[in-house]
Amino acid sequence: MKTIAATIISAFLLTLIMGIILIPLLKRLKFGQNVRDDGPKTHLLKAGTPTMGGLLFIFPIIIVTLFFASGDLSFTLVALLSTLGFGLIGFVDDYINIVKKRSLGLKAYQKLIGQTLIAAAIAYYAYTSPHIGSSIVIPILGKEWDLGVLYIPATIFVIVGIVNSVNLTDGLDGLATGVTLIVATTFTIILSFAILALENRAGQFLLENYSNLLIFSAALTGACLGFLRYNSHPAKIFMGDTGSLALGGAVAALTVLLRMPLWLPLIGGVYMAEALSVIIQVLSFKLRGKRVFKMSPLHHHFELSGLPETKVVSMFMIATAVLCLFALMNI
Amino acid sequence: MKTIAATIISAFLLTLIMGIILIPLLKRLKFGQNVRDDGPKTHLLKAGTPTMGGLLFIFPIIIVTLFFASGDLSFTLVALLSTLGFGLIGFVDDYINIVKKRSLGLKAYQKLIGQTLIAAAIAYYAYTSPHIGSSIVIPILGKEWDLGVLYIPATIFVIVGIVNSVNLTDGLDGLATGVTLIVATTFTIILSFAILALENRAGQFLLENYSNLLIFSAALTGACLGFLRYNSHPAKIFMGDTGSLALGGAVAALTVLLRMPLWLPLIGGVYMAEALSVIIQVLSFKLRGKRVFKMSPLHHHFELSGLPETKVVSMFMIATAVLCLFALMNI
Repeated sequence: MKTIAATIISAFLLTLIMGIILIPLLKRLKFGQNVRDDGPKTHLLKAGTPTMGGLLFIFPIIIVTLFFASGDLSFTLVALLSTLGFGLIGFVDDYINIVKKRSLGLKAYQKLIGQTLIAAAIAYYAYTSPHIGSSIVIPILGKEWDLGVLYIPATIFVIVGIVNSVNLTDGLDGLATGVTLIVATTFTIILSFAILALENRAGQFLLENYSNLLIFSAALTGACLGFLRYNSHPAKIFMGDTGSLALGGAVAALTVLLRMPLWLPLIGGVYMAEALSVIIQVLSFKLRGKRVFKMSPLHHHFELSGLPETKVVSMFMIATAVLCLFALMNI
Repeated sequence: MKTIAATIISAFLLTLIMGIILIPLLKRLKFGQNVRDDGPKTHLLKAGTPTMGGLLFIFPIIIVTLFFASGDLSFTLVALLSTLGFGLIGFVDDYINIVKKRSLGLKAYQKLIGQTLIAAAIAYYAYTSPHIGSSIVIPILGKEWDLGVLYIPATIFVIVGIVNSVNLTDGLDGLATGVTLIVATTFTIILSFAILALENRAGQFLLENYSNLLIFSAALTGACLGFLRYNSHPAKIFMGDTGSLALGGAVAALTVLLRMPLWLPLIGGVYMAEALSVIIQVLSFKLRGKRVFKMSPLHHHFELSGLPETKVVSMFMIATAVLCLFALMNI
């Protein structure tokens, strides 16, 4: 308990400090977001707010995790490299987007290739690890499901899916940060209980790795809490793709390392809803020539339906909390 | 874990349902808030929003707690009666305020007498209970401090202080609800760990009572989460004194029953800061003829300093989360 709380607080404080240093710097370098001009009109006011805010929390997550972790670091390094690797793709995208004024950043296929490579590395690690392997846990039933060699493509799909879903969720002040804060808190609770349950029977490897993954999850929680200080409405900084891909990488790594992809409709329910809304919108328009939502991703649909931005964010955060509670009910 | 999550979700859903029924009713009955006209100008827009929202969550807390509790209910009944009793004082106040259009509601001394009577009953119960008695726990040192007969007046002061501090905190959309959501979550975590620690050594009485108090705390958490759905900015309903005194009563009961009044500067730090800002403001004006804050309670000071309402609320919630983490670090 002491260590978990200390980790969250440390990551929180370090992210706050990073904000004090980096926000004026990013502002001066004119790393402001080019706001899409087809979105809700009120969002045009957001032009000029600095982006790439992910830089504020990526390093605190890494530093604080490595500071508090001890023993075998295998799982934790996978999680940290996933966060950093996806964050790097996002950073390159943001950088081209802003500095080169090429408003689309990296091309879609370039991003996808990079993401798939990182995802494949994680999937391969998990598949060959004697402590993870090719089986995943089925919620409610509590049984295991062995995917065999299909595990690798399925896991790549899950990781790339999560990362891009978090990316899509990042469209309102505090939304991706707030939702991920709750998701990270949930993983922290899950890992705490998993360790209590493990202590009697599992070997040293799993115990040490789960303990360090708990530290990672706590650092992620604290970093989100700290970033929310700046990112809540009205946002002083956006996380950019740097941030949303890094958060996606962190959540994806936790999901895979804990063998919990089938829990995503609960724990990652809001991310999934955002992604599905885009898929449904595009398919419906192509197939029927009609739109299902006033605008996708889903949060813009609610905004255009008359809900204020702050209300959509609080609703999505509350929905995440309740879905995560349902997940905790079945653990 | 199953029961805690189920309790939170049940209280959440029941509060949502109460909102669907009661909000249109309160609106039709014109139970709208008379907004103080000396506050920030933007708040005048809030006139007409129905109040007495506490009714939405008081009954879910009681019903859900009694549904999930089992075994000895002594502590839990004290907590429920505290919530209901203080809520009732708030309700009478709101009712006179609105229906009789007497904008001050109950007179201050009338409220204080009622509050002191309930507080005295709780203090007397705790003092004579063999499982609580006259000693409280000192944070960090972990030692106990026996207050002797002074326990009763000190506890009355603590309870009345908490209740009125929560009342003062209720001044921005989602503020008292959001802060109390985090406080209730913290008590839920504290009680979960206390029960794990107790299981080996304590008698049946304390184990059953702590388990039921955990249910109460979880119900409080869920009710706050549900109410936040309606109460977050822009609020569709205010909790009124009905709500803030009830929440104060719930938090005060948990604090006393767990012998944790000395933890208040951490767990209830935001409530205390709000109350202290009022005391400092009044004293400074009387003694020096000068104001310290632009306006008290503290949240109005930040608003008048240029921070938007939503930012003040998220800052106060984040501050509460970090203070609660400091508390958890020392348990």
